[in-house]
Amino acid sequence: MSRHLKVGLVQQPAWPDKAASLAESEAGVRELAAAGAELVMLQELHATHYFCQYEDTALFDLAEPLDGPTGTRLAALAAELDIVLVGSLFERRAPGLYHNTAVVYDRGRGQVGYYRKMHIPDDPGFYEKFYFAPGDVDDSRRQGFEPIDTSVGRLGLLVCWDQWYPEAARLMALAGAELLLYPTAIGWSPPDDDAEKARQKEAWTLIQRSHGVANGLPVIVANRVGHEPDRSGVSQGIDFWGGSFICGPQGELLAHAGKEAERLLVTLDMSRGEDVRRIWPYLRDRRIDAYGDLTRRYRD
Amino acid sequence: MSRHLKVGLVQQPAWPDKAASLAESEAGVRELAAAGAELVMLQELHATHYFCQYEDTALFDLAEPLDGPTGTRLAALAAELDIVLVGSLFERRAPGLYHNTAVVYDRGRGQVGYYRKMHIPDDPGFYEKFYFAPGDVDDSRRQGFEPIDTSVGRLGLLVCWDQWYPEAARLMALAGAELLLYPTAIGWSPPDDDAEKARQKEAWTLIQRSHGVANGLPVIVANRVGHEPDRSGVSQGIDFWGGSFICGPQGELLAHAGKEAERLLVTLDMSRGEDVRRIWPYLRDRRIDAYGDLTRRYRD
Repeated sequence: MSRHLKVGLVQQPAWPDKAASLAESEAGVRELAAAGAELVMLQELHATHYFCQYEDTALFDLAEPLDGPTGTRLAALAAELDIVLVGSLFERRAPGLYHNTAVVYDRGRGQVGYYRKMHIPDDPGFYEKFYFAPGDVDDSRRQGFEPIDTSVGRLGLLVCWDQWYPEAARLMALAGAELLLYPTAIGWSPPDDDAEKARQKEAWTLIQRSHGVANGLPVIVANRVGHEPDRSGVSQGIDFWGGSFICGPQGELLAHAGKEAERLLVTLDMSRGEDVRRIWPYLRDRRIDAYGDLTRRYRD
Repeated sequence: MSRHLKVGLVQQPAWPDKAASLAESEAGVRELAAAGAELVMLQELHATHYFCQYEDTALFDLAEPLDGPTGTRLAALAAELDIVLVGSLFERRAPGLYHNTAVVYDRGRGQVGYYRKMHIPDDPGFYEKFYFAPGDVDDSRRQGFEPIDTSVGRLGLLVCWDQWYPEAARLMALAGAELLLYPTAIGWSPPDDDAEKARQKEAWTLIQRSHGVANGLPVIVANRVGHEPDRSGVSQGIDFWGGSFICGPQGELLAHAGKEAERLLVTLDMSRGEDVRRIWPYLRDRRIDAYGDLTRRYRD
């Protein structure tokens, strides 16, 4: 792994029209690659609108196999630009079995790994348990919280709701991840007041920065922007808040987007993480003899 | 537990002279109790200077049993003021066996529980592995990451270095803790540049706020202030950075101290945590089937 790594992300609106959404993504990827990015990440489900605002079986038509048109296009783009590209697919694994899957394409090598979202949310406006089976655990270690090896390093790739779980970031770090990556789709419910909105966005920012701190790793987060209506008419839709960022291994913000479409590019010093772990060596002192109850739902 | 709880903390300098240090602590506790605090927390090792800057067997003379003069005095203070008081002792458990122990005194009931620091740091200027045996794990659940029941609620009491470990906060939350508390002693090494100092303090603040976010719990953190020399003459000592704070269950700062002596007082809405957990129900979705490797040192 090079000591310095140029990483970029695309923060964008997206629409039911896959062609329009993917054109927007591709334009961003091309711009970042032209500026020297070796690794580019797209936001969660960037090829479509955030369709989980209501439950409709017809929407499963949006899903594709990993080697479907979207995956094929992203692989070709990574090959053409000679970069590592992280995309996000609504994956059709089998009839009636779908996942929320982040996929990694490595230059001319094509797809080198994927991560099926392990923690699946479900709350009003985010009905993901209807659409997505959670990722599997697999004793072979090709599933679950497993990082993905690429030409730019070992990627600890997680997705959205995973961002609230320190367990997920830790398992990636313990498996040697050199970066944590979170494609995500989160926004405000318009009826919430400004103070609540501010608390939510700040909580979301700081929990992900905290995974950098706890593990001495840089973190890359890409979120979508724009208002998306609830096509069922039940709610006032979602205002996706953007706020994508890249932070270093002490959680320090290196680039931070606003709430409009934006592309971020940062040169990471990949040797900094070990320096940080030497001054604050958390991995040395974990009380693994006392952590057994972390595998319990509740200690009652 | 009352729906609203007035909590306070004392941020102070401390000195080798126990009488002077405890007088400063007591003045703060009295002021906060007079202002209505039902729960008051003191910083880590508040009865003395931070003696771990170098290793000297003579310094074990500072240690006391839990029912020694300092513990007895704190218990009496809690009884007199009719509050729950969280203190921090250099505990002499047996000849040659010492702990860094936070102790809870509950109104007239005396000592109702203690927590022996589980994660023990050791880096230049913070030679705690010399002074403190780590807290035990105990199948009876009277040791380790166990909250302490009091008249104001179930306290998830941890100490300093524990603050960097999301595992510790999670285990307290899973055991029903209603508040997370961190007496701490952390500061800058004077030779570090301002940017590094800023990163360190910000990392420390956000990791503890993140435990509030991840677990939907308020967090109380008390740190010391003032410059303390390295009496061995090896280093330039430590500038304790203060920055004590109280935050709510979304990590939102409710009170935040500067770098001088200060006392914080906040009224917490203790019903807010369940509201937050209802909108973002992390505990529901933990992948306990996939967390087994959290008990490994490293996944290699």
